[in-house]
Amino acid sequence: MSWRADILTLFPEAFPGPLGLSLAGRALNEGRWALQATDIRTFAQDRHRSVDDTPAGGGPGMVMRADVLARAIDAVSPEGDPRPRLLMSPRGAPLTQGKVREFAAGPGVLVACGRFEGIDQRVIEARALEEVSIGDYVLSGGEIAAMALIDACVRLIPGVMGNALSGTEESFSSGLLEYPQYTRPQLFEGRAIPDVLISGDHGRVAAWRRDEAERLTRERRPDLYEIYRRGRA
Amino acid sequence: MSWRADILTLFPEAFPGPLGLSLAGRALNEGRWALQATDIRTFAQDRHRSVDDTPAGGGPGMVMRADVLARAIDAVSPEGDPRPRLLMSPRGAPLTQGKVREFAAGPGVLVACGRFEGIDQRVIEARALEEVSIGDYVLSGGEIAAMALIDACVRLIPGVMGNALSGTEESFSSGLLEYPQYTRPQLFEGRAIPDVLISGDHGRVAAWRRDEAERLTRERRPDLYEIYRRGRA
Repeated sequence: MSWRADILTLFPEAFPGPLGLSLAGRALNEGRWALQATDIRTFAQDRHRSVDDTPAGGGPGMVMRADVLARAIDAVSPEGDPRPRLLMSPRGAPLTQGKVREFAAGPGVLVACGRFEGIDQRVIEARALEEVSIGDYVLSGGEIAAMALIDACVRLIPGVMGNALSGTEESFSSGLLEYPQYTRPQLFEGRAIPDVLISGDHGRVAAWRRDEAERLTRERRPDLYEIYRRGRA
Repeated sequence: MSWRADILTLFPEAFPGPLGLSLAGRALNEGRWALQATDIRTFAQDRHRSVDDTPAGGGPGMVMRADVLARAIDAVSPEGDPRPRLLMSPRGAPLTQGKVREFAAGPGVLVACGRFEGIDQRVIEARALEEVSIGDYVLSGGEIAAMALIDACVRLIPGVMGNALSGTEESFSSGLLEYPQYTRPQLFEGRAIPDVLISGDHGRVAAWRRDEAERLTRERRPDLYEIYRRGRA
């Protein structure tokens, strides 16, 4: 069984979208993972096929109905499905690379994409949806957030990235931001590649890269640097 | 002049993708914003049209060449372009809703999407690219990250969301996570909408929502709650 992502969305035509290109797309075509987008609207039961209604207690916007989303979840992820059931939402736990590794190592994910003002709280509780946030900003819906989560997972599936993986992944795993990279030409608009990188001295190169990664992290992300520093103490 | 996003990418066919659907897509069709994706490979000059090369100093993967990306930037964003020039990168400053508001209020953005192991550091410096991260996880490229940033901006452009905007946006602006939402039916699998929300007492509804938003934020995001608490002190 390959890793499988089921998406519940009002815009199934958005998928695979960018997930059908490049590394993720090639791996999808090779069957290294599977993707199915299901239209939540299919599970509406009134003749207008409505999926939303006004918020109880008033307020702007519309709220997605609990019963419609619950039927959609039950259809694609029956009881016993071992995959986590995620809901992309700015209220959720911030996505981290550690969480991505956990999802990627499992059998796949079910991802519900919100729209409108929100989702009826009762379906979140009744179906034990795990709310996940890709960052502290508001999107018009969960679709692009789901794509980010799935892309991050898919690149960790064995065979998807091959050798290309190691560098970035290890760099992030170390808890530091990535060191600066350079490639040919040797001179660009008067700017040269740092001497150490063309010295051929592997030890000096490694030391320079570690120093630069530490410096960048300290300057840009004191929060991450503090965690890194404690981990080494 | 409408708000304009220029994307530099090796996968121009990924755009507009999800940005062509729903609210963002309708606004795009109505000319409330403009989107142009440009293929970086067009600016390669050797006969293999190569855009990348091996990292100076060794290591896995490939690095995007400074000269090729610089030519692409100069073509779509000549000197004097008032738009910020962004590079989607996990090394960047974390995107926040405050930053989104700033970008949305300006003339637009230029967004370069990385691929491979990274981008030659010299083009980042020579073209003053502002590195932006959508979160602490690694994607296979910058395209989905660019979509997230642009979607977040576009929904704030006047006229794009209409009334639907106010709720979520104000909720996030308050520094708190959003309170739980409910809608019909009144009873879902034995779970009722909380009495207060159907009481018709607007004062009690508002108080309940504020309490719930504070509770959720305190429980899930003590980091955000601390900032909120200090702001009120």
